[in-house]
Amino acid sequence: MMSFMNLLDTLDIASLISGYHTHRFSPSEVIEIIFQRIATRGTDGIWTYVQPKQTVLARVSELEQLPVNVRTRLPLWGIPFSVKDCIDVAGLPTTCACPGFTYIADYTNPVVTTLINAGAILIGKTNLDQFATGLVGIRTGFDIPRNPFGSDYIPGGSSSGAAVSVSTGLVSFAVGTDTGGSGRVPASFNNIVGLKPTRGLLSTAHIVDACRTLDCVSIFALNVEDAWKIAQIAKGFDPQNSFSRHEANPPANLESYHSGQAFRFGVPLSEHQEFFGNKDIEGLFLEAIQTLIDMGGTCIPINYTPFMEANDLLFRGPWIAERYASVGAFIEANQQAVLPITRDIILSAKQLTAADVFKGLYHLADLKKTISPVWQQIDVLVVPTTGTIYRIAEVENNPLELNANLGYYTNFVNLLDLSALAIPNGFQHNGIPAGITLIAPPFSEQHLVDLGAVFHRHRTVKSDAVSSIQ
Amino acid sequence: MMSFMNLLDTLDIASLISGYHTHRFSPSEVIEIIFQRIATRGTDGIWTYVQPKQTVLARVSELEQLPVNVRTRLPLWGIPFSVKDCIDVAGLPTTCACPGFTYIADYTNPVVTTLINAGAILIGKTNLDQFATGLVGIRTGFDIPRNPFGSDYIPGGSSSGAAVSVSTGLVSFAVGTDTGGSGRVPASFNNIVGLKPTRGLLSTAHIVDACRTLDCVSIFALNVEDAWKIAQIAKGFDPQNSFSRHEANPPANLESYHSGQAFRFGVPLSEHQEFFGNKDIEGLFLEAIQTLIDMGGTCIPINYTPFMEANDLLFRGPWIAERYASVGAFIEANQQAVLPITRDIILSAKQLTAADVFKGLYHLADLKKTISPVWQQIDVLVVPTTGTIYRIAEVENNPLELNANLGYYTNFVNLLDLSALAIPNGFQHNGIPAGITLIAPPFSEQHLVDLGAVFHRHRTVKSDAVSSIQ
Repeated sequence: MMSFMNLLDTLDIASLISGYHTHRFSPSEVIEIIFQRIATRGTDGIWTYVQPKQTVLARVSELEQLPVNVRTRLPLWGIPFSVKDCIDVAGLPTTCACPGFTYIADYTNPVVTTLINAGAILIGKTNLDQFATGLVGIRTGFDIPRNPFGSDYIPGGSSSGAAVSVSTGLVSFAVGTDTGGSGRVPASFNNIVGLKPTRGLLSTAHIVDACRTLDCVSIFALNVEDAWKIAQIAKGFDPQNSFSRHEANPPANLESYHSGQAFRFGVPLSEHQEFFGNKDIEGLFLEAIQTLIDMGGTCIPINYTPFMEANDLLFRGPWIAERYASVGAFIEANQQAVLPITRDIILSAKQLTAADVFKGLYHLADLKKTISPVWQQIDVLVVPTTGTIYRIAEVENNPLELNANLGYYTNFVNLLDLSALAIPNGFQHNGIPAGITLIAPPFSEQHLVDLGAVFHRHRTVKSDAVSSIQ
Repeated sequence: MMSFMNLLDTLDIASLISGYHTHRFSPSEVIEIIFQRIATRGTDGIWTYVQPKQTVLARVSELEQLPVNVRTRLPLWGIPFSVKDCIDVAGLPTTCACPGFTYIADYTNPVVTTLINAGAILIGKTNLDQFATGLVGIRTGFDIPRNPFGSDYIPGGSSSGAAVSVSTGLVSFAVGTDTGGSGRVPASFNNIVGLKPTRGLLSTAHIVDACRTLDCVSIFALNVEDAWKIAQIAKGFDPQNSFSRHEANPPANLESYHSGQAFRFGVPLSEHQEFFGNKDIEGLFLEAIQTLIDMGGTCIPINYTPFMEANDLLFRGPWIAERYASVGAFIEANQQAVLPITRDIILSAKQLTAADVFKGLYHLADLKKTISPVWQQIDVLVVPTTGTIYRIAEVENNPLELNANLGYYTNFVNLLDLSALAIPNGFQHNGIPAGITLIAPPFSEQHLVDLGAVFHRHRTVKSDAVSSIQ
């Protein structure tokens, strides 16, 4: 087996497909390696549930016995993936990182079903900030998933295990969710790609809702092409899901992007940029801007104030009541089963009135009106995915404020109905990665991934060698 | 002056324009007649404010002094109209039919501004159910506007004075509002047309909100062509109004309608039709169906249950909290200034939580999903505008239930983001009119008015002569 382990230094989809095609290795051999890696890591907090190896190998055996003409019609034949544990997979436990909440799911989220039907192999379900509430990745009833670039550092959340399962080479991609940044922050902290598609493009049926009007299924992958490949397979109108949407055309300026094409990117006015004292990430963001300019971009500083107001609306405004609508009854009846911080955040919604919600909706409509002309001036908005990163101990000492800081560039996106792509942007001097996020109007994914793929290649070439994964 | 009074048996726009064009009468002569009629009627509850005659005549004088080439560019030159008194006109009092609420407006609603700029002449502001809360037209702090077809009967609301100002020949058209039926029910009870355009098509800026996410400006007129002419002049994206929308294309099957063209119309399954014992209106509705069939329509009975559920959501669900968000603070501070029924309805919102609102939004999304396929089966939904009509005394004895009954065919429309056109459908044996409403997806106004105009002509020919207006 060691003979091909070196070939498996990356599980990106193209490498696996190429290896399968040339018979350098088989899916069952890849699965053996993955289970060895999982065993070697031990109890590392990534997983809330790992499928029994025999179950996975039985699935692989089915795939391997398919006639070649059937296999070739399965675009994800033999590709391993993980599912965030607020998403139902029939027959498996759903925990939301709250052991007392656990139930065995009766149904499978349609995105997961579609991916499995395309030949993908489910390895297990991944840890998260409890009830997908948090951006830190340490608010879990299980062990904390360790950041592979520095175990003192938070992994980012709420899709913590999802991101770490990709960055540590246990799966090719991960299915996560994103309400206020859960699909982008952990991508940044794990040096991987996080695609947060337009609300309603990927079905959110059979998910424990965080904010049902805002929640998205998101994709974590090693590169932009993989994330987009998965999203294209997974997307589609779900007539059973009330918040599913028919795909619409993007704005005319955002249909696609080709290398060298001129484009306009907005960045927050320098006085609106916030790095919380992190000079490394500030410097990396300046490098990213230069890279985008080198790629043919024109940099247009924009007033970030209304985006900050939208951030405040998400976590200080009435949307918290959606979390209460989703799991409030469970928390009321099982207060000891829930982390105190998660419980306090969600139960705070009880102080909000019905009129507060409508006032929040009016405020949001006002902000959308204010921001709307910005999209005439720029094609995409470019922000650091986060302004900084924290150590676990720092967050434990100041859990609310530091969590909120991590949402400075992410919270507004779903409220304002935007699409987003988080991409690696190099490393701080301490070896911890940082990222940027490209943001655009809904249904602009093609443009984001075209632009993002070029950017990612530029930055991978320019950055120093990656620290070895711990 | 009597020489041309007979010519003014109708103030429909074509008649006025023709009269002006042929110099049979002038705008100032029309205004004289209107003020005579207002004086003759005395204190009849239509108006909360009538412009001083000298003010109106000064305005008319300006219009009459315009060069002919300027006049001809003003499509509403010399056309008199009224404005519902929850809509601001700068310098005039806004009362919402609550004298204690009165303030002098600083701004004019953009629809009103546009109509005035097109040459229309504002006569005054019209009575309504207080804070636009009600479908009966008798919940006012002023006198009750009398139904011109039977003064024992309610005029319909909440745009009560608006509808009566048109049906009694005091204006050519009226600007009203519609949240749960306020632009349709009084049209039906006054034998006139009520156009409730798509949400956001006519600006709702500078209006005392009822439910800000649902409110529409509506148009009352003597015929369909007039209502559509006004709406086409008044519509347009208002960048200052957060709930304004850019006009979008209608579904392909609803672009327009020409006489004789085949079409599919839905009606509630017979067991879902509700006339509250009113056999006359039931019979008139059957006649309407036959007329539509004669016009080339195919009648398709549909399951009305989800529409009834949406009705319940509007008045028993969380949207009442929008009324509280709008005028709750005033009512709390001035409880004696408000009608007890209006006060109790709006203050009931205080019992609703933030989570209740989100659960309502989820329920609404579920209903939209359920109803969506219906629009593949039918082009328009046809309903009685109301199942019955009540005497004032009946409503006074049972104000909540009878008011709710009047919304059986109207409440759901704005919640489900539909467009609607209320059209006269003949008379009951007691001389009281009844109407039908055509309902279609958003931005389908052209189809509704094309179809509705043909229907109106058919029914006007077929019906017995109208009772003389009292």
